[in-house]
Amino acid sequence: MKKKIRVVQYGIGPIGAAIVRLMREKPSIEIVGAIDRDPAKAGRDLGELVGARDAPWGIAVSARHPGVLDGRVDAVVHTTSSDLAKVENELMACISAGTCVVSTCEELSYPFRKYPEISERLDTAAKAEGVALVGTGVNPGFVMDKLVLVLSAAAQRVDHAKAVRVVDASKRRLPLQKKIGAGMTPEQFREQASAGIIKHHGLPESAAMVADGLGFDLDDITEKIEPVIATEPVKTPFLEIARGQVAGVHQIARGSYRGEEKVYLELQMYVGAKQPADTVELRGEPPLSLVIPGGTHGDSATAAIAVNAIPAILAAPAGLRTVRDLPMVYFSPGH
Amino acid sequence: MKKKIRVVQYGIGPIGAAIVRLMREKPSIEIVGAIDRDPAKAGRDLGELVGARDAPWGIAVSARHPGVLDGRVDAVVHTTSSDLAKVENELMACISAGTCVVSTCEELSYPFRKYPEISERLDTAAKAEGVALVGTGVNPGFVMDKLVLVLSAAAQRVDHAKAVRVVDASKRRLPLQKKIGAGMTPEQFREQASAGIIKHHGLPESAAMVADGLGFDLDDITEKIEPVIATEPVKTPFLEIARGQVAGVHQIARGSYRGEEKVYLELQMYVGAKQPADTVELRGEPPLSLVIPGGTHGDSATAAIAVNAIPAILAAPAGLRTVRDLPMVYFSPGH
Repeated sequence: MKKKIRVVQYGIGPIGAAIVRLMREKPSIEIVGAIDRDPAKAGRDLGELVGARDAPWGIAVSARHPGVLDGRVDAVVHTTSSDLAKVENELMACISAGTCVVSTCEELSYPFRKYPEISERLDTAAKAEGVALVGTGVNPGFVMDKLVLVLSAAAQRVDHAKAVRVVDASKRRLPLQKKIGAGMTPEQFREQASAGIIKHHGLPESAAMVADGLGFDLDDITEKIEPVIATEPVKTPFLEIARGQVAGVHQIARGSYRGEEKVYLELQMYVGAKQPADTVELRGEPPLSLVIPGGTHGDSATAAIAVNAIPAILAAPAGLRTVRDLPMVYFSPGH
Repeated sequence: MKKKIRVVQYGIGPIGAAIVRLMREKPSIEIVGAIDRDPAKAGRDLGELVGARDAPWGIAVSARHPGVLDGRVDAVVHTTSSDLAKVENELMACISAGTCVVSTCEELSYPFRKYPEISERLDTAAKAEGVALVGTGVNPGFVMDKLVLVLSAAAQRVDHAKAVRVVDASKRRLPLQKKIGAGMTPEQFREQASAGIIKHHGLPESAAMVADGLGFDLDDITEKIEPVIATEPVKTPFLEIARGQVAGVHQIARGSYRGEEKVYLELQMYVGAKQPADTVELRGEPPLSLVIPGGTHGDSATAAIAVNAIPAILAAPAGLRTVRDLPMVYFSPGH
């Protein structure tokens, strides 16, 4: 029998838990450990913590690395924060232990522009240890960057790239609905957006990846965030939103060169969105577009992509990778 | 300045000519030679042959390999035939000269099932010479196989994969309209289809690639081809088709395991097709679909994909590759 891939889950929030449940179903994966710094989780059984029917699994969640991360671990799935500066030492601990890493840290997906020094340190350390790491999920990592590049293969020339993601947050979990400001007044929203509390991470990273791939020499990436105001009352299993209250976020990133827009990324994530979809449009020769009707479900797709990326990161050349230079990621039941 | 990629074009039919014109625009590519066995083409200037405005280029088309294929050539773009058995020695000549190959030979896209021995020979020779080769184009190589696998990355489970390509052949060149039987009687069509003259190549190859990728253990791949009958008169710049005559082909490949269908690929290519599109549907958890409205233009997209695949084949590990294990292919202007 083929040797199983030994994986540690680092971070047991909602996405981490979804990843753990999915990995548990994969015959090719053995979950050998779990880390979460939250004292309320440390010591608990991982199966129980993620609500598995076959719990307990006999795998205790640990608050610390030692004894969990070691040379016998093949890969870590890391899901603790969007903020690369905050997680650099967590990623370094994985690399030092000689394990590959798939992380959902949005800023890791294409960190070269915002964090050139951290990128350099991670890449150097990973190459020295002979391991690879990548940041990916559904967004960034799939609908607004990878799909744009994949579609561009059929183009003789690309002049401008656009990706629009419309998500109906009604079907998402409460923390997400709160994260996008659903139910707030427009004033509360603007305050929290200014403070960086309400924000989807990853648009500038996707814009930079697309631009570098398509050879657009951006001199500016701007980002703006606005509330989507409910024009009629909306009710979710968790919240009721009155007319005039905030239903969610509308976020736009633009990459341009000498004032000319080259990349346009738009995210609408709000409760009650009528036509959720992921759309890519390439202007050029020929013009090309691609639609995922209904869109990809954020949590479910991010969990799938993170798990499906494990064989790719194990096969990748050592270093800091991106989905642009990772071997192809696809579903496989055995894995 | 970065060294240019030195490329030879092998086969100057309509697709080969489109590839040559596209490569001519790429600052990173230098076309250093061209091969075509047709005595009517040999000796002619490549630029003139492909209708370039800046012809002549001072590159003569050669009928033979010697003097064209040598160690100074980085890659060959090969576009001579759909039939792998017919082109094995052409591919071997490229490999022996130490060049990588991107070929539009449909049967090369995933040759392991139909031609295990040729696959083995090509792989062994390519590894011995330290070069890589791949068969790709828009179909096979993109819409019915690669896009299926790319989309599956967002799936937690895939039970069945379907791809449907609807092409309006009105906008395509005359040889293609004839190749799909447009203007024939249904009897003529069936005769030519039985003789293998009317046939799109590549569906079983795409089915096998998708199945192997998604871990479906197919025990059978079937293929059928039927005429699309014109229900009203259709006129193209080349042909007039009366009601009751053939407008084009309808071809279906099915991959199954113990009688259960796992992969369904359908190609409709006929003059007057109303809603051209490329569509992928995955049944599973969650169900996922993807649409390219209007579809990808066969000739233009195949030329783009072949040229865009050159950096990927140069970066690929030595051996016989497929689009499943090729580094990501995307448009880049510099290249």
